[in-house]
Amino acid sequence: MTRTAIVMLLIGLLLCSSVHASDDDSAPRAEQWPVSEYRLDNGMRVIVREDHRAPVVVSQVWYRVGSSYERLGHTGISHLLEHMMFKGTAKHPPGELLRIIARNGGRQNAFTGRDFTVYFQQLAADRLEIAFRLEADRMQNLILDAQELAKERQVVMEERRMRVTDQPRSRFGEHFNTIAYPASPYAWPGLGWQADLEAITLEDLRGWYARWYAPGNALLVVVGDVQPEQVLRLAKAAFGKVPARATAHPHRADYLQAPGERRLVMHSEDAKVPYVLLGYQVPSVATAQARDEIYALMVLASILDGGKGARLSQELVRDQRVAASAGAGYNAVARLNSLFVLDAVPNNNTDNAIDPLVKALREQAQRLQSEPVDTETLERAKNLLLADHLYELDSMFYQAMQIGMLETAGVDWRILQVYPAKIRAVSAANVQAVARKYLIPSRLTVGILLPQTPPNDDVQPGNQEERS
Amino acid sequence: MTRTAIVMLLIGLLLCSSVHASDDDSAPRAEQWPVSEYRLDNGMRVIVREDHRAPVVVSQVWYRVGSSYERLGHTGISHLLEHMMFKGTAKHPPGELLRIIARNGGRQNAFTGRDFTVYFQQLAADRLEIAFRLEADRMQNLILDAQELAKERQVVMEERRMRVTDQPRSRFGEHFNTIAYPASPYAWPGLGWQADLEAITLEDLRGWYARWYAPGNALLVVVGDVQPEQVLRLAKAAFGKVPARATAHPHRADYLQAPGERRLVMHSEDAKVPYVLLGYQVPSVATAQARDEIYALMVLASILDGGKGARLSQELVRDQRVAASAGAGYNAVARLNSLFVLDAVPNNNTDNAIDPLVKALREQAQRLQSEPVDTETLERAKNLLLADHLYELDSMFYQAMQIGMLETAGVDWRILQVYPAKIRAVSAANVQAVARKYLIPSRLTVGILLPQTPPNDDVQPGNQEERS
Repeated sequence: MTRTAIVMLLIGLLLCSSVHASDDDSAPRAEQWPVSEYRLDNGMRVIVREDHRAPVVVSQVWYRVGSSYERLGHTGISHLLEHMMFKGTAKHPPGELLRIIARNGGRQNAFTGRDFTVYFQQLAADRLEIAFRLEADRMQNLILDAQELAKERQVVMEERRMRVTDQPRSRFGEHFNTIAYPASPYAWPGLGWQADLEAITLEDLRGWYARWYAPGNALLVVVGDVQPEQVLRLAKAAFGKVPARATAHPHRADYLQAPGERRLVMHSEDAKVPYVLLGYQVPSVATAQARDEIYALMVLASILDGGKGARLSQELVRDQRVAASAGAGYNAVARLNSLFVLDAVPNNNTDNAIDPLVKALREQAQRLQSEPVDTETLERAKNLLLADHLYELDSMFYQAMQIGMLETAGVDWRILQVYPAKIRAVSAANVQAVARKYLIPSRLTVGILLPQTPPNDDVQPGNQEERS
Repeated sequence: MTRTAIVMLLIGLLLCSSVHASDDDSAPRAEQWPVSEYRLDNGMRVIVREDHRAPVVVSQVWYRVGSSYERLGHTGISHLLEHMMFKGTAKHPPGELLRIIARNGGRQNAFTGRDFTVYFQQLAADRLEIAFRLEADRMQNLILDAQELAKERQVVMEERRMRVTDQPRSRFGEHFNTIAYPASPYAWPGLGWQADLEAITLEDLRGWYARWYAPGNALLVVVGDVQPEQVLRLAKAAFGKVPARATAHPHRADYLQAPGERRLVMHSEDAKVPYVLLGYQVPSVATAQARDEIYALMVLASILDGGKGARLSQELVRDQRVAASAGAGYNAVARLNSLFVLDAVPNNNTDNAIDPLVKALREQAQRLQSEPVDTETLERAKNLLLADHLYELDSMFYQAMQIGMLETAGVDWRILQVYPAKIRAVSAANVQAVARKYLIPSRLTVGILLPQTPPNDDVQPGNQEERS
């Protein structure tokens, strides 16, 4: 799997995984989900899904805040605050929260996305109350301490160094996003720019916590071997005591439609092989004017990069031999416009390998526009998506994730119930239509990473121009 | 003059005008400026420059706030607030301020830049007190009214429509900036994105006014036929009464150095001719680690685009005939990193004209790197800059502008005093060194505007790739 596919999986794991599917048809069908919904008096929403296959429960508290809520100067503050949320309250000193969950045989963690911050526990079903108590406590009583911040700032900067600074392809991805999202908060990294990580103050964190960590901005998702009414009673007892507070209105800043064809060429001494990344600006489930287009784009991604017979592997790697690996991905679950990406590593390490590879990738887009996919290709792609969906439903954790990600993207989780039918309904004409509408030059960013020292003068402008 | 030169002139009029110089050597020399500086008890700074050539005075109130202080979601708020500042106070209802100044034979206006918002009056020297009284009143007593906002929002959106939406080259410039400033608040337009202009609330404006319009964040610049002590007395009487208030700390968000070579191709049906814009990321007077590089970059711009014998006109337009017009510009006065731009219109309207033109522009950068400029070229470029400087000093208004722009960029205005000596000291080796350091591919964005309907499919990827 390419890095992009991995990233897509992390961000958009709901719908674009290319993991091979289980054939286990005994998993519950989305159409049949027994789900209960409540709203506490302080505005906090509670969604409970019963799943009695095992005596366990997943509890997730979702806050509608993430890197796309930030501004230049404070990038990374959501993620830094997520780290600080493990630093304790008056009732539970630093580290105790982790110990309590571990002592009760549970697991827990948190992560921050562009549109959400989520804290979760996995426990034996009869321990759910413990998770609620701890989450309700840190929702309102977090102690933000200067010394703890100093430590955690180092941890996060180290995380950034390991995951980005030392990874040429990740650095390239950060640069690519600044161009591919030309007027969107998705332009900046979720981990934040280094200079901001250094500059964020305790006061800034207190403000961010006060602004977004209110019950009215939170969503509790519980999936497992539970009775909904019992969950509601526990939730009322724990979270119901958190006072209601106003939260800021998030801005949906995303301005340029079809902003023009863009290209980025980046040199990196520590990159081992060249890398090509194409991103087309496309709607997300939240921004699509015609939501059915989303499903067609998913099928399109599955045609290019789903299973063994997928087009990119077959044609670019095995037939044309222009790529050592090639993939595609589409993250539909986002609050703002998204990208449809194609990526590839050329099959040799020379500059001459780049042009034919970019051309071959663009020809894939062209082909989807000019000729409808045949029935076999279409059906295989759809079946893969449906199998992935079933596979994901097999996990309580993913079920909860899907609900939370959709809701924090601003979309009713119930669209999950129609997902299989919507995928089945996608026709070859639908796929061709979205290819024609969205896989066009004015929405395209071509990124090229080259494993070389950057040229320090402009002595061969002709060559530069010819590169791609 | 190309659009870019005009824009540069507006934003960076201090140092890169290409207006022909006056030979009038009786204008005061920067070295000899009699300037007095004060700070009021509430933190407001006052800078007074005597100029007794005529019985007039220019008064400017500068606030350290502009579009680079904004965030996505609120872009354009500084400019919108500037408009609202003419909407009156309890003491002076809407329109009265304009009438008072006009009745006293004065002129006044305001404008908003990336790093500042400035309000100014030009009056007979004995009327200065009137300007102070009005400015001090609206610094603290502005009435922000919903009906007035509704009107002014329309005015500003109309301004945007006329200046940007209906101007293909301005639209292109907006898109170009999102790419050329990949992680900088200079990425967004000073007028703001249309969606933000529609969304900004009265409450947002009140917050912006409270946050930035405090005396400690203001600078009063007065140039004219005045006695400094008298100006100070008047300033104390008017502005001294405005209560001190804390202001937010502006963020200097500007992250990526040498972010990689970028390209933008944009199609526009209403563009009449193609247009090519190259921008190299370069330091500004505020960000330069070695400030002498700034002066070398200015001389470089003057070599390319200063006077009749300048290289771009001579070589691209007259000798090689690849351009109908060509220019260069460098805006040194900015709080964050800036751009060194080259721009040109090809000498015919076909796609084939673009490649040779981009190549020719890049060869100009190459030539400055590979061969030192001859003494005659260097001296002519420096003399032009010095003549422009004298010419600008001839205007009281520009003198005040220079002081205010430098100070709001975060630079002591006193560097004006060394400007002529610094320009004279630039050597051919200095010019070559900055060309080698900054006019390099990893700092370059190539923008291409084509007067065509955008292609709606990707059927000719080869052609697209070959374009440049």
